[in-house]
Amino acid sequence: MGFSEQAISESVDPKRLSDTLKEVAARPHHAGSDADLATAKYLHEQFIIAGLESRIEEYEVLLPWPEEVTVEMLAPHAYRCAMREEPLDQDFDTHTREALPPHLAYSPDGDVIGHLVYVNLARESDFAELKKRGVKLEGAVGIARYGALFRGSKLRNAAACGMAALLLYSDPKDDGFARGDTYPDGPWRPESAVQRGSVLDIARYPGDPLTPGEPALANARRRDLGDVDTIPAIPGAPLSARDARPLLESLKGANVPEGWQGALPFPYHVGGTEEVSVRVRVRSDWRIRKIWNVVASLRGFLFPEEEVIVGNHRDAWVHGAVDPGSGTAVMLEAARVLGDLARNGRRPARSIVFCSFDGEEYGMLGSMEHVEHFRSRLLERAIMYVNVDAAVSGPNLGARGSPELSLMLNGALSGVRDDRSDRRLSLLDATGPQALQTPGGGSDFVPFLHRLALPVLDIASSGPYGVYHSGFDTYTWMKKHGDPGFSTHARMSRLLAVLLNRIASCTVLPMDYISLADWMKEHLPAIPAPAGTSDQRSLRDAVLALREAALAMDASRASLVESDPDPLRLRAVNRASWQALRVLRADGLLPERPFFAHALVATDQRDGYGALTFPSIRSALADGDVERAREAEARIVAIIDDLILSLTRITEAMNTLAEPAQ
Amino acid sequence: MGFSEQAISESVDPKRLSDTLKEVAARPHHAGSDADLATAKYLHEQFIIAGLESRIEEYEVLLPWPEEVTVEMLAPHAYRCAMREEPLDQDFDTHTREALPPHLAYSPDGDVIGHLVYVNLARESDFAELKKRGVKLEGAVGIARYGALFRGSKLRNAAACGMAALLLYSDPKDDGFARGDTYPDGPWRPESAVQRGSVLDIARYPGDPLTPGEPALANARRRDLGDVDTIPAIPGAPLSARDARPLLESLKGANVPEGWQGALPFPYHVGGTEEVSVRVRVRSDWRIRKIWNVVASLRGFLFPEEEVIVGNHRDAWVHGAVDPGSGTAVMLEAARVLGDLARNGRRPARSIVFCSFDGEEYGMLGSMEHVEHFRSRLLERAIMYVNVDAAVSGPNLGARGSPELSLMLNGALSGVRDDRSDRRLSLLDATGPQALQTPGGGSDFVPFLHRLALPVLDIASSGPYGVYHSGFDTYTWMKKHGDPGFSTHARMSRLLAVLLNRIASCTVLPMDYISLADWMKEHLPAIPAPAGTSDQRSLRDAVLALREAALAMDASRASLVESDPDPLRLRAVNRASWQALRVLRADGLLPERPFFAHALVATDQRDGYGALTFPSIRSALADGDVERAREAEARIVAIIDDLILSLTRITEAMNTLAEPAQ
Repeated sequence: MGFSEQAISESVDPKRLSDTLKEVAARPHHAGSDADLATAKYLHEQFIIAGLESRIEEYEVLLPWPEEVTVEMLAPHAYRCAMREEPLDQDFDTHTREALPPHLAYSPDGDVIGHLVYVNLARESDFAELKKRGVKLEGAVGIARYGALFRGSKLRNAAACGMAALLLYSDPKDDGFARGDTYPDGPWRPESAVQRGSVLDIARYPGDPLTPGEPALANARRRDLGDVDTIPAIPGAPLSARDARPLLESLKGANVPEGWQGALPFPYHVGGTEEVSVRVRVRSDWRIRKIWNVVASLRGFLFPEEEVIVGNHRDAWVHGAVDPGSGTAVMLEAARVLGDLARNGRRPARSIVFCSFDGEEYGMLGSMEHVEHFRSRLLERAIMYVNVDAAVSGPNLGARGSPELSLMLNGALSGVRDDRSDRRLSLLDATGPQALQTPGGGSDFVPFLHRLALPVLDIASSGPYGVYHSGFDTYTWMKKHGDPGFSTHARMSRLLAVLLNRIASCTVLPMDYISLADWMKEHLPAIPAPAGTSDQRSLRDAVLALREAALAMDASRASLVESDPDPLRLRAVNRASWQALRVLRADGLLPERPFFAHALVATDQRDGYGALTFPSIRSALADGDVERAREAEARIVAIIDDLILSLTRITEAMNTLAEPAQ
Repeated sequence: MGFSEQAISESVDPKRLSDTLKEVAARPHHAGSDADLATAKYLHEQFIIAGLESRIEEYEVLLPWPEEVTVEMLAPHAYRCAMREEPLDQDFDTHTREALPPHLAYSPDGDVIGHLVYVNLARESDFAELKKRGVKLEGAVGIARYGALFRGSKLRNAAACGMAALLLYSDPKDDGFARGDTYPDGPWRPESAVQRGSVLDIARYPGDPLTPGEPALANARRRDLGDVDTIPAIPGAPLSARDARPLLESLKGANVPEGWQGALPFPYHVGGTEEVSVRVRVRSDWRIRKIWNVVASLRGFLFPEEEVIVGNHRDAWVHGAVDPGSGTAVMLEAARVLGDLARNGRRPARSIVFCSFDGEEYGMLGSMEHVEHFRSRLLERAIMYVNVDAAVSGPNLGARGSPELSLMLNGALSGVRDDRSDRRLSLLDATGPQALQTPGGGSDFVPFLHRLALPVLDIASSGPYGVYHSGFDTYTWMKKHGDPGFSTHARMSRLLAVLLNRIASCTVLPMDYISLADWMKEHLPAIPAPAGTSDQRSLRDAVLALREAALAMDASRASLVESDPDPLRLRAVNRASWQALRVLRADGLLPERPFFAHALVATDQRDGYGALTFPSIRSALADGDVERAREAEARIVAIIDDLILSLTRITEAMNTLAEPAQ
């Protein structure tokens, strides 16, 4: 740990983190609201105080705000869902009247009556099971547990079965009393708490639905609402366990299949008869509203035109202490600490750009418009994107990310001392060491990874957290349960600052192409062999060759580091080592989803959060189109061959540089 | 399917099975009661009508009947458990006043007050977890879910931790509403239903606790109650979910570990503080009472001194329609059908003995006293023992048994047409084909298997069954849920009759020593290698040699069957083929548990129901005594070598017999 990292470790301040969180989570601040604008101004001001250049970028996006969300059972007896979270004496924030009522953003307007059917998690497999049992889905109102897949995918699946509407509720089995004590006694979801959220089809494309492909500036061309294809076909509404209970308890007929039973205290039934009738009314004010990204830069002193980007969203469904307040606090703390270092003569060599995005909850609106706005600049300058979202909900450190960033992450982990164990930090949860996960979807890394094919990291420290997207995700929750002493916030701030500082200042960037090749090998799709013999170079062979090239480059990089070169002489080779990745960006990989441009990964359309690896090949195989899969394979092989060529050239350049200067 | 099996199939009568079940489950008939004696007389009469010789055998055993079972919470608020099952309008039987109150048979008397601790399933591992967490167990009253292990083992584990008493309750997660609709709507346990049962240490020795090792005849020598070592050290009582709820809900402190949460609608806590105080009072009338086995014989016409034994118990905790009424109905139906066949000139070659044992619920009292009473006769004459207990609780056929009976069971299965699929019967449940399980403990096969080392089978057809050992296990439950048309009873009766008839009449008994060797190979214990080289023949080598000998015998048996020999000439070779198994009976295998005399299997002492394979070796290894394990291995090797010698001789004899008669 050098001087800088010592200084980072010491200047991170748990008390200041607590104050920041208190400030940013003081009021409900959904995207486009006055409170949201106030947090943007606060962040902007704080970045400037920290010594950064900051600006506020404004976009105008479609933000439907709910005017009516009503769910009533009409038969066998009348019950009108309260749609209201019970305030707590122990937490003043839960008494707020500033929040939007519980709703699903981008649910279409509607007023439907249908018979009720319990559809478990609303996966495709759940609907297949219901069809097998002969349950009438046409015209029905579905009620599904939250969990396993993105809520928008649930609505899509229900609509595909001809359902009239879908209710989503939080079963206590998944994040309520069956997991442990509920808030305020414990961290889990109280029975009146509702998970809000967007149902935009983010696995098709995220961002403002009216301006796909270009930034939602004031004068942008806009689609008609009727032409938007990422809004679900049927209305939906979210329910608390308490509101769901009378509905579920009224269902009769066969017992649910194995695994569908939740934790409410009665046997669950599928229903499906006219006996239980439910009316769902949803109406929103579909208005174009302003949102605000805050973008602040700590300028590098050697290579200011090379940028490490870190981002988080700022908008929250209600107070959003965990999601996204904890990430905002951690990111601002890193900016403050690195700003201090710069003031004290330790300015990073490359630039670090801090982004506080707006409208993430609605479907990554702010980050998407940013990427669309600054696309060529980002492709030219951005080395990588680091995401912090719900950075702290508990003590277990985890990470998702591009495998080519493994060495950088591991380096940063080894540069931070874990105050709990006095060892180096590691990716650990209660069950043991964790691997770097493949990112799929669900946060602001999406446009960077999928649209620009930039390498990304997403780090978070998690734990028992049942109040997600509810009015109970407050500063008091964090003080009582998530991180009472703010030591986890401090640990995350140290990790983030060390990571950013290392990447921005290191002499030779340790791009990890060995891990990339290993990742490819692990995720290779099985393509049925062609009928005759084929002279097509196989993907496996290409990956093995990439690994060889990566090993050679790694050896040369080690020699180069050994030779202690002048950083200025390394500019071109460093730049080439990350620009080589640009070859992974390709158009037309997924004909149905033109948004996705990374050759190796896309959001899994079935669940909206998970990763689909080698998406062009796998989606062709899923369609049963082996011919197309083989064409996609050939294209990936060509991309890998290009990458190998780049690595070989970089290796040669490194070898030359490592030779003693004449 | 020959003539006999056609006749068996046709004469099994679902209506008669329904009537039999109605008769035997008409009244609560716990062991020793007047109603129990009435069912004994009914069975005796029915066997005689069926054309069998029948007798009633009387024993005098210790049967404590409860006089008081009271569970009260004293703090934080007063609650007195109802200890009463809620009668149902839809089932007249649930209104009975003849049943004993819910209790744990052989719980010692006691009146204790202690702080309450939730101990999950009361496994050794659960207590280890509680100790790790620093929960005070000394002097506590435990409350444990039913499940996973025998209830007596739970009390033993609790006592070993210094607890003052243990309450056992039925969590709705395990057999109540979380599994599906509760009775009367569905087959699962209503919230007021209580699982009664014995807590005698049946993994030490079953049977009358006062007369171990000899039959409990009127004039038997009897131990003092104080010298009995199979009665738990601490009192216990069973609770319904409804009675357990206020107790569990009062517990505070840390949330329970992963997997301990049940289905009651609140977060479970371990408790362990003085805040929650519970008083448990148990008092029984510890009297010696009479019990009655009914033993009926269908005499074989060729080899009457060779016996196939089939048994079930007759006593029930309440009405016992499933447990054991369904087995009794199935067994009686088989007796009637085989009795009819005999009357029509198809009397079996060997004898079939039908046993209706008493006092099984208390700890296999009737079967154990029978085995102690007729020990030498059984060792001389019994080919095998077939058990039917809760023969029908649903549609899924399963079996436990000695591997050397695999061929016999498979033969019988192939001789019965499954009326549902029109294929042959097979061991199937909802998840697919099932293997023959290794029997451990828990029913009347125990004395035959463990004391006499006879080969045994235990067959049952099971399904969703939540009313086990409660007042809701009634004829009406069976009609509504378990087997509405009695077609499963009919299927089980056909299987049992075909099985008994084949074994009793086949020319060459298909003892399956190949499966026995395969079973041994699968269950071989891993014994650490000795320090130096050892010339001890290894168990693995012995098993492989046994398999060779078994293969040779099997080939000779096939040729012998081909040669269509005169059954009378085969008497000696048949007899030798099952008498060879007697070598598996050995004394002193388990110094702590002298009851267990089978070299290959014992009841697993940790759970009371499961099987401990190669018990002498495994228990030595568990004690860390490798030397003793190696001695035990040498002894098993010698036993296997003896068995190989027998098989070789039988093979030679078969070869001689298979040669064309001169």
